[in-house]
Amino acid sequence: MARRKKVYEGKAKILYEGPEPGTLVQYFKDDATAYNAQKKDVIDGKGVLNNRLSEFFMVGLNAIGVPTHFIKRLNMREQLIRAVEIIPLEIIVRNVAAGSLSTRLGIEEGTPLPRPIIEFCYKDDKLGDPLVAEEHIIAFGWASQQDLDDIVALALRVNDFLSGCMLAVGIKLVDFKIEVGRVWDGDYQRLILADEISPDSCRLWDIETGKKLDKDVFRRDLGSLTDAYTEVARRLGVLPSNSAPATKPHLIN
Amino acid sequence: MARRKKVYEGKAKILYEGPEPGTLVQYFKDDATAYNAQKKDVIDGKGVLNNRLSEFFMVGLNAIGVPTHFIKRLNMREQLIRAVEIIPLEIIVRNVAAGSLSTRLGIEEGTPLPRPIIEFCYKDDKLGDPLVAEEHIIAFGWASQQDLDDIVALALRVNDFLSGCMLAVGIKLVDFKIEVGRVWDGDYQRLILADEISPDSCRLWDIETGKKLDKDVFRRDLGSLTDAYTEVARRLGVLPSNSAPATKPHLIN
Ligand SMILES: Nc1ncnc2c1ncn2[C@@H]1O[C@H](COP(=O)(O)OP(=O)(O)O)[C@@H](O)[C@H]1O
Ligand SMILES: Nc1ncnc2c1ncn2[C@@H]1O[C@H](COP(=O)(O)OP(=O)(O)O)[C@@H](O)[C@H]1O
Ligand SMILES: [Mg+2]
Ligand SMILES: [Mg+2]
Repeated sequence: MARRKKVYEGKAKILYEGPEPGTLVQYFKDDATAYNAQKKDVIDGKGVLNNRLSEFFMVGLNAIGVPTHFIKRLNMREQLIRAVEIIPLEIIVRNVAAGSLSTRLGIEEGTPLPRPIIEFCYKDDKLGDPLVAEEHIIAFGWASQQDLDDIVALALRVNDFLSGCMLAVGIKLVDFKIEVGRVWDGDYQRLILADEISPDSCRLWDIETGKKLDKDVFRRDLGSLTDAYTEVARRLGVLPSNSAPATKPHLIN
Repeated sequence: MARRKKVYEGKAKILYEGPEPGTLVQYFKDDATAYNAQKKDVIDGKGVLNNRLSEFFMVGLNAIGVPTHFIKRLNMREQLIRAVEIIPLEIIVRNVAAGSLSTRLGIEEGTPLPRPIIEFCYKDDKLGDPLVAEEHIIAFGWASQQDLDDIVALALRVNDFLSGCMLAVGIKLVDFKIEVGRVWDGDYQRLILADEISPDSCRLWDIETGKKLDKDVFRRDLGSLTDAYTEVARRLGVLPSNSAPATKPHLIN
């Protein structure tokens, strides 16, 4: 099969032209980056796990009526998605203080928040994805007030669903990041969930032990990232034996 | 300890006066009834399992900000709850056609619904909990339009959360029933989730096999109800070894 045309290469994924107009192929790389790509590594099998996990969550969300870009998984590392016009925002939903919220506002990590808090960051690597207020978003035309209302409703539904998924397998959903995009059905435009939902984009803490099962393992050098993501996948039953993380043979030196 | 005063005995649970004003103790019996109590049995251990499972779901819902009557579990069969004024409605949320929806509207069991459908039944055993429309509810003053809007929002949040819980352990949430009640905080009244969430009040199908893991096992004589509920509890990790279903010694005859 002739290789498809590359549309975009990001830090963790590559987008290729899809087989039909309005579709793309999303390829999950093994690349891990943190702190706006100041810290980098290649983590064997991460892409395979995230492809599977994102499929699992998006299929579940579609089934409860939360619209997503996911069409179908193509193979171990690729999924067919609906092309969207990405809203240039990282939408963060937080249930427990951690990461930048803790740092910026001096709230100890692990402090439960009085209610879920939604934050918007302007998606721009050069600027370090700065936090913005609704004011900025509307003034600069990144999204309208109606878009923001829809985004908040969608983000809270994802939070309810994902909190349930995680609780059921003994994991606390601390926070997560989503991206949404615009699609047109004729003249009518609506917003759907895009990008990925995976341990790269969530903070996940084991309820019993507090152990981190997400990208903080990489950010903070807490051990094997593949082990952490595999644990999440295993608990959710999305790790059929034939797709165990593909660990390549390694030279022993 | 002197036995507390019985406030109400229903088909599956008993309510006792609680230790503080505004509280009740909800005791989970082993009694199973179906078809408005025309079919009855005692199922060893069911009460213990439902007490645990309802605790699990209500604690999870409280944590994501869905208000519930649950305060704490007291022992194997009892939980402390906030007393509410029950809205006399069974609120049913359906994701897949089954049970009375299939029968009444001729939709084959297992047909996915285009979106979640919420039904209200007037809670009255003598009348067989008849289906009612919002018109009836408002005309007879069982709830206001504002109450109904709040109930729908709450029911959909429970659906999102519970769908996630179930999907994460390989179970399809087909439908479920909730009850809500009114509480007053000073002059301000609001609605909270009451009664129970358990396999008695849900339809739960194993995703792989389609096997029923809910009260239909009893309604339709499909095998051991305790085994089905134990399976749900086990998958959700809410069956610590010391609370395995208390099977009493049986006389062999
Ligand atoms: N359905 C979609 N249509 C178009 N672009 C998408 C879609 N889903 C995600 N994207 C974009 O594709 C890129 C995914 O690759 P990623 O490695 O995450 O990039 P980045 O480094 O920019 O975050 C992101 O820029 C994301 O905004
Ligand atoms: N928090 C609460 N406060 C007051 N009543 C409640 C509360 N939660 C549930 N109930 C009521 O308590 C009873 C629970 O027992 P159950 O065996 O289910 O009764 P029933 O046979 O009437 O359904 C139900 O009638 C339910 O409406
Ligand atoms: Mg990205
Ligand atoms: Mg009842």
